[in-house]
Amino acid sequence: MLAFSHQEYQNRLMKTKKKMLKKGIDVLLITNPANMNYLSGYNGWSFYVDQVLAVIVDEEQPIWIGRHMDANGARATTWLFESNIIPYPDTYIHSEKHPMEFVADILHQIGQSNRRIGLEMESYYFSALAYERLKQSLPNATFVDASLLVNHIRIIKSEQEIEYIKRAAKIVERGMDTAVAHIAEGVRECDVVAQIYKELITGTPEFGGDYPSIVPLLPSGENTSTPHLTWTDRQYQYGEMVIIELAGCHQRYHSPLARTVSIGQPSEEALEVSKIVIEGLNTALDAVKPGVTCEEVEMAWTNVIQKYGIEKESRVGYSMGLNYPPDWGEHTASIRRGDLTVLQPNMTFHLIPGLWFDDYGIEISESFRVTENGCEVLANYRRELIVKEDLDLTIIS
Amino acid sequence: MLAFSHQEYQNRLMKTKKKMLKKGIDVLLITNPANMNYLSGYNGWSFYVDQVLAVIVDEEQPIWIGRHMDANGARATTWLFESNIIPYPDTYIHSEKHPMEFVADILHQIGQSNRRIGLEMESYYFSALAYERLKQSLPNATFVDASLLVNHIRIIKSEQEIEYIKRAAKIVERGMDTAVAHIAEGVRECDVVAQIYKELITGTPEFGGDYPSIVPLLPSGENTSTPHLTWTDRQYQYGEMVIIELAGCHQRYHSPLARTVSIGQPSEEALEVSKIVIEGLNTALDAVKPGVTCEEVEMAWTNVIQKYGIEKESRVGYSMGLNYPPDWGEHTASIRRGDLTVLQPNMTFHLIPGLWFDDYGIEISESFRVTENGCEVLANYRRELIVKEDLDLTIIS
Repeated sequence: MLAFSHQEYQNRLMKTKKKMLKKGIDVLLITNPANMNYLSGYNGWSFYVDQVLAVIVDEEQPIWIGRHMDANGARATTWLFESNIIPYPDTYIHSEKHPMEFVADILHQIGQSNRRIGLEMESYYFSALAYERLKQSLPNATFVDASLLVNHIRIIKSEQEIEYIKRAAKIVERGMDTAVAHIAEGVRECDVVAQIYKELITGTPEFGGDYPSIVPLLPSGENTSTPHLTWTDRQYQYGEMVIIELAGCHQRYHSPLARTVSIGQPSEEALEVSKIVIEGLNTALDAVKPGVTCEEVEMAWTNVIQKYGIEKESRVGYSMGLNYPPDWGEHTASIRRGDLTVLQPNMTFHLIPGLWFDDYGIEISESFRVTENGCEVLANYRRELIVKEDLDLTIIS
Repeated sequence: MLAFSHQEYQNRLMKTKKKMLKKGIDVLLITNPANMNYLSGYNGWSFYVDQVLAVIVDEEQPIWIGRHMDANGARATTWLFESNIIPYPDTYIHSEKHPMEFVADILHQIGQSNRRIGLEMESYYFSALAYERLKQSLPNATFVDASLLVNHIRIIKSEQEIEYIKRAAKIVERGMDTAVAHIAEGVRECDVVAQIYKELITGTPEFGGDYPSIVPLLPSGENTSTPHLTWTDRQYQYGEMVIIELAGCHQRYHSPLARTVSIGQPSEEALEVSKIVIEGLNTALDAVKPGVTCEEVEMAWTNVIQKYGIEKESRVGYSMGLNYPPDWGEHTASIRRGDLTVLQPNMTFHLIPGLWFDDYGIEISESFRVTENGCEVLANYRRELIVKEDLDLTIIS
């Protein structure tokens, strides 16, 4: 049931320990579910309760500590020995006792309670309270922020990881096809998203789809200027623009993609703006190769839009791959001014240059892999402002 | 676009301020997206970045502070005045600067930086780092844990909230029907989940479906003893048991439901166990009425299973309603030993008594509303171990 070879997990663990040594960390308490998965294989929808993977620098195997009812899940999905799977009782769930007190007890019992302990201070599933309780329960430990330690190892993908991301790209092509096919005047937003979900989870006959870490985002009409609103049950109107942002997912690896659809002929202005976005996107993709910095890729985009007198504040891309809700980004490299991350082969990014105005916006994105001498775009999808005419209605079943 | 009347938001805010006064809190910094939604209406998939709703006890309106690109979303979904929507620039995203430093700056500018500040210490989206940066940036403030302050107000639902939960129940009936219809020998797990998602998001012709806060969970075969594993692309085998746990969702309000399906005739033992689960579930539902404690409802269940010589460790239910990923539970009342919460009309719970053994498990659940003199079960779905025979295959299109 493991998604990767035993050897690959060992390599990841070795790299992690190397970084721990460099930072003087004896025990790394991992709470980011993507990092738990990356090192142990653990995969379950259990991150809504406290759980930890403890990597001890001088111990062979990490220790999984989680809720009693999830221990079987750890047995089924990880490569860890039975003795390294330690469940806490349900009396710790949403009660006065905190699971981190149990974690502290275990560390105490195995002689790790007075060491230098690395914490993922910025993990979604390591709350301020978890931190306080852990500190109180381990008065002799020294705490070190190790927020993105494992994330930075994840930034360069193995061949097997690239394979999963490419499968996710095949799935997102299908999801986008379905979205484009169903968006039309008079159709409810929720009905379009229902069809997209069906496609993203079905996947292909060869490999199924996993749940993407972000729901399909399809802002339309005036809401295209509000990129993170989710769908409603209103009907699409003739003349509206719809931005579609999706990811395919396979074995928790993502391949995101965004396109903009115009229901009926777009305005001259929207058509012009979409051409600028595409020119900027193409120019930025052309700039990608090993040795170039993230900032330089962003500059390639900015140079294009400045030519047309446009300024944009947000970053235009980010490193992505393995993740759990609420985000498929890796929180390491960003394609923006000031990010001096040097591109290397098998880094994977979502490059999503959008231009939003007060009453509409256009996004056209690509996910790519850095190759030996350039970049490989992951999904194969027409790079244009997609126009849906009324007569398309007859084609949709 | 507001889901509730202005009056209802005002009532919620008034109750919140009353509790703040009682706890000596001057400023409540809300980071739990369900609580942000409850008080302001804010609804977007933007909780993967730091955002805050600040309720100041002596100010009329709360203040929304979030990412620049989400400010239009706040304008579209909240009842707040423009002046109370304060965006921070993108340079705070995944960088050295932290959004909580911006929040602290705002509090300083409006003269709130030396007051007693309540924090949701156990919110998923208030990280340990956010807490540290906030403390550092507000050296003159006093911090108070206000983790479940708003959650405890949410525990009793208004008529409009009940209406949304009932719509969610209508949706989950459809989702469960679809799950049962598609589960069969030789069908891939992902293909069943794809159909479920289509149904849950479509909703009904009258109202669309929203995204549930937990993905459909369908552990099968040996994995029924691992309740939180998600689907794969393996095919169902004849003779397997499948547990289906779903929720319908409308306007972010949930109605969860679980059933167990046997592909082919179940073993005598599984049939016996399912009868015990149903007897226990019915007995617990019969025990529900205002004035009874959560613990007493759990005891009704435990008395039944003990009669058959079974012990169970986990809690058997929890308060639920409005929420965002990763959980639809409210984290307040639990139906378990030691929980002395007194049931009151319009509390809503998911009662999910499961029995898991080493190689299989059975779950049959109901969501209910406490009424004036008993309980109202929300979804109308046959309460039995559902048996799928081979011949059913011909019925499925």
